[in-house]
Amino acid sequence: MIKIGLDAMGGDFAPEAAVKGAVMALDRLKEGSRIVLFGDSARIGEVLAAEGCDADRFDIVHTTEVIEMGDHPAKAFQAKSDSSITVGFGYLAKGLINGFASAGSTGAMMVGSMFAVKPIEGVMRPTISSFIPTLASRPAVLMDVGLNVDCKPEVLAQYALIGSAFAKSVMGIESPRVALLNIGEEPSKGNAQAQAAYQLMEADGAAGKYNFVGNVESSYIFTGKIADVIICDGFVGNTILKMAEGLYQINCRMGHTNDFWGQMNYENFGGTPVLGVNAPVTIGHGKSTPKAIMNMILSTERTIQTNAVGMIREAFAEAK
Amino acid sequence: MIKIGLDAMGGDFAPEAAVKGAVMALDRLKEGSRIVLFGDSARIGEVLAAEGCDADRFDIVHTTEVIEMGDHPAKAFQAKSDSSITVGFGYLAKGLINGFASAGSTGAMMVGSMFAVKPIEGVMRPTISSFIPTLASRPAVLMDVGLNVDCKPEVLAQYALIGSAFAKSVMGIESPRVALLNIGEEPSKGNAQAQAAYQLMEADGAAGKYNFVGNVESSYIFTGKIADVIICDGFVGNTILKMAEGLYQINCRMGHTNDFWGQMNYENFGGTPVLGVNAPVTIGHGKSTPKAIMNMILSTERTIQTNAVGMIREAFAEAK
Repeated sequence: MIKIGLDAMGGDFAPEAAVKGAVMALDRLKEGSRIVLFGDSARIGEVLAAEGCDADRFDIVHTTEVIEMGDHPAKAFQAKSDSSITVGFGYLAKGLINGFASAGSTGAMMVGSMFAVKPIEGVMRPTISSFIPTLASRPAVLMDVGLNVDCKPEVLAQYALIGSAFAKSVMGIESPRVALLNIGEEPSKGNAQAQAAYQLMEADGAAGKYNFVGNVESSYIFTGKIADVIICDGFVGNTILKMAEGLYQINCRMGHTNDFWGQMNYENFGGTPVLGVNAPVTIGHGKSTPKAIMNMILSTERTIQTNAVGMIREAFAEAK
Repeated sequence: MIKIGLDAMGGDFAPEAAVKGAVMALDRLKEGSRIVLFGDSARIGEVLAAEGCDADRFDIVHTTEVIEMGDHPAKAFQAKSDSSITVGFGYLAKGLINGFASAGSTGAMMVGSMFAVKPIEGVMRPTISSFIPTLASRPAVLMDVGLNVDCKPEVLAQYALIGSAFAKSVMGIESPRVALLNIGEEPSKGNAQAQAAYQLMEADGAAGKYNFVGNVESSYIFTGKIADVIICDGFVGNTILKMAEGLYQINCRMGHTNDFWGQMNYENFGGTPVLGVNAPVTIGHGKSTPKAIMNMILSTERTIQTNAVGMIREAFAEAK
């Protein structure tokens, strides 16, 4: 039995969008998966009733508080001990749920990830990642996409290890091609950070820790020809992600929509997994629609089911 | 009389593409502008003859050597003293031409910019910029796009001053909106570099040095709504530029072409101006087609004609 925790109070349109998304996910879940909703049970019940959905199809954990976007994440996580996020992380830390997803306060979700479920032993800095569409048969994984904006080269090399294990588990790729995002192909290219990271990643590759394929320029990340996992710092990754979203919006306006560009839509991303911590955590866009919530639940289920956390933990245990 | 120098031997398809591009530019030049070709006069003459173009329509400076892509830029600039690039920069430094453009060795072009025409007094690090298309009536200017990949915040603030003067002159914008590329709108967002640069640029804005409008996220740079000049380091700028080119290629393949996306095509860029040095210098793509060369000549003409260098020099004299 897989239990997927969802913060029913998280996001700009909660609890309506969150609960509707959970209802939409029901028919798409694998057998044996169950959604656990954290939030105001009366309000959750109202949305379920309006949707014509039997409340028994969910576990509901009643909470009385909500961490708001304006709250100080760390303080609110402590002070609002009966908030949906704080209670959700309590369940996650105790193993009462197998993963937790929210479109609420990103800061509070990170506080929970770092202090309730904690980084995996050996991980210097956990990371957040995103799938990006490619012309190949599967998307690529980009990380970090905004959590760590000043990365030491050692941290980037760890992201390669995390990303490789994540792609192996969640995407089922036997030997994911891991590349460093850079502004040229040659090892000597890039800023001081990229040059140093290249050396570390090359050594890791030679040691068999992961399949390092060298540098990838941003012109090629969407082709899928070079890399399955693309490593960069959070400033660059966030810039790439937001630029893709911006151009997607422009293309939509121009009527240029298709499967490739459609994957740039955050609704289809399924949220952003927090990686390098001891349990599956997924953070959604504040403006998440029901569809986005549904995809976030399904991607969290996949992360749980494919044992992504276990594989990352194993990779770090072996790398010691 | 404006004299625009062109390296006829520069680029993967030289001298054919370069000379053909020069011929294409002839009818589009302003009255009083003249192209000066640097290169092997016999080979130039052959291409002109094949094009049915009278050689008298150009000034031709015969040179006997070529700096190859594989050459060490600084060494070759010195050793190949009769190369088209070295001779071209000699003419530029002496004022015999008013600007110089080449699709040849980028490294050698930078050596010439730094040591023959030299940085403008007060400029710590010259920069290269690019026009990027927007949904508004005019493009935006992005800088740095690959020259300085490790930028101190002070250098970024100088780029704002350079970019503002450039947009004033070349684009005729009275008070260009200058923004810092960042991963959030708030001043506190970003990495250490962006946070520090924000403070400096805010102070510059308050002092009336340029019209600082705050941070711009990459999702908005193509809308044109927020900024005319977008400042970032060369690692990020190059990543943005190459990503745009990559997505343009993908769109082309999918048949999604239009005026907006067409401007992502390097052929329409007209090359990359080197800014912050004492004369107009433009660097083209190695693979430049005749059309790309033509646009590079025309953009160099515009930079000369609008006195961009003088305006940047003035801005730095005032800022002292």
